[in-house]
This record gives sequence, C-alpha cells and structure tokens, in this order.
Amino acid sequence: MTVSMYTISVPIFVQFLTGLSAVLDKAAAFAEAKKVDPSVLLNTRLAPDMFPLVRQVRAATDHALSAGGRLAGVDAPTFSNAEATIPELKERIAKTVEFLKTLKPAQIDGSEGKEIKITFPSGATREFTGESLLLNNALPNFYFHCTTAYDILRNCGLELGKRDFMGTPVKL
Amino acid sequence: MTVSMYTISVPIFVQFLTGLSAVLDKAAAFAEAKKVDPSVLLNTRLAPDMFPLVRQVRAATDHALSAGGRLAGVDAPTFSNAEATIPELKERIAKTVEFLKTLKPAQIDGSEGKEIKITFPSGATREFTGESLLLNNALPNFYFHCTTAYDILRNCGLELGKRDFMGTPVKL
Repeated sequence: MTVSMYTISVPIFVQFLTGLSAVLDKAAAFAEAKKVDPSVLLNTRLAPDMFPLVRQVRAATDHALSAGGRLAGVDAPTFSNAEATIPELKERIAKTVEFLKTLKPAQIDGSEGKEIKITFPSGATREFTGESLLLNNALPNFYFHCTTAYDILRNCGLELGKRDFMGTPVKL
Repeated sequence: MTVSMYTISVPIFVQFLTGLSAVLDKAAAFAEAKKVDPSVLLNTRLAPDMFPLVRQVRAATDHALSAGGRLAGVDAPTFSNAEATIPELKERIAKTVEFLKTLKPAQIDGSEGKEIKITFPSGATREFTGESLLLNNALPNFYFHCTTAYDILRNCGLELGKRDFMGTPVKL
C-alpha cells in the first residue's frame, strides 16, 4: 500500500461527488415536501457576493475535472454551465464521475513534479507543479465548494448529517 | 519530489489553520467596527443543529491534532474545550500549529498502512489504516470545519475572499 497522486485525488473526488449527488436528491425531496420550487434552493447563497448553490455544485465538478484532466494529461469534458435544475446538476456530476473513472493510476501517479501552467479567464497565468495544483488548489477548493453546498442546504432547513457530506469511500 | 503522508497532512493543516487564525482576526475587527460582542459571531450557526463558529474552530484543530498525533504515534496536546473568546481560539490554533511543526516527515511517512483503532466518546470503535484515517476522515472533516467557519462569518456579513480561506502554502 502506498499513497500516490492517484489515491489522493480520483477516489476522493468520486466519493464526495457521489455524496453531493445524493444530497441533491434530498434537496429535491425537501422542495417537493415543502412545496417550494427547487430553484429557490439552487439560488440560495450564504452571502450576497458568494456563489449560490447551483454554482457551488458546478465549481466542485470543475475542480475535480480540471485536476484530473491536467494531472493525467487528457482533455476533461466541458459543460454548458447553464445547468439550472437538480436533474441537470446531477447529470453534470454523473458525467464528471464517469470521466474520473476513466483515469488510471498510471496516468496520474508520478505527476507530482509535472509543470502545469494555467491561464485564467482574466488572462492571468499561474504556474503549478502537479503536487501544488492538487494539494494547494484543487483539493481545498473542491472541499470548499462541496462543504458550502451542504452548508447552504442546511441553512435552508434540510435535515442532513455529516454522513451525507462524507459519502462512502470508493475503491477504484 | 514525492507525495507522502507527511506532505499531504502536516503542511496542509498548518496552512489552513494559519488562514483560519487570520480570519478570526478579521472577525474581531468586524465585531469592533459593528460594536457587537464577538461572542455573537462565535455563537452563530447555519442551522440549529449544527455547531456554532466556536465549535467549528475547535473541531478543525481536533482533526489536525488527532491525525498528526496518531500518524506519528505521539500524544497530541489536549485542550479545555472551554475556549469562548477569539483570543482563546487563536491560542488553541497556535498551540495546534506549534505541535504540528514538531512532527517530522520521518515520523509520519510510511504510516499509510498503520493500523489505527479509534474509540469514540460513545464507546463505539472504528478501525482505520493511516491512509483511510487521513484521506477519508481527518482531511475531509478538517476542510469541512474550516469551510463552515468561513461560511458562518460570511453569513454574518464579514468581507472575506477565497484567499482568506486558502491562506498561504507553507514549506516545513
């Protein structure tokens, strides 16, 4: 048993995205029981200048896709960013998980020293190693957005527990 | 350069705890500017059955201490759990960081297969490997509590950005 770039990335992303998808099922059931439009939940924010739930979910998938694709050196799927319903967000998560599952340990292990240059939409660039991209950018951001999605729904009154957030560890 | 149990744990805990401490400084300044008692912020929750800010901070330190100590096989410091002010929480964070910095890579690297049995306050026990403790328990919980502390303060109206959450990567 060894810890590797693969073991600390792909199975983690899959575990927490699968948990997030199940949390969205609970959000759909909550909206139905409360007779509120699910879009009310999806547009809820914790602060006026924070992303609403719908963008927290998109951001979680983005960090998993970007890190997985860049570390493995393959193109990750892109999405419309127009997802506006729970089924559409669940589809985006499912496609992200499907892509992550195509990545093999041999494609990602050893990528810790890989030079990765990212150009942001602003035009700014930032240089990472595989390790710094994963540990100091992708994983913290991924957890941030998964947690904030959970926090928004808790703030809306959903009954969720830490187990919903954690999901179930996966063996890939 | 290699990824190891040490590189994915101690420097990460130190980075985000240091960020959290700086966020608490901003909370103190916010409370002073708004002329509210800081304890109002520390007792704010996102849902009635979630921890308030004060316990989110304690929980973040607990997961870092517990994982660091167990992986290295040394006793982590314990705290009173009575911290009720921002300076007391910052002191708890500082002592946690101080402890983490005493841990050397040689004490933690190779602990991925180590058998670790945890007895919870309820009396229930759970068996982990070093890897499963860190990847499937300590790190997700640590990030959960750091993020939720940030989310509570954003929800209170503090002006914070993702950089405040991220802190600065550390070289140990």
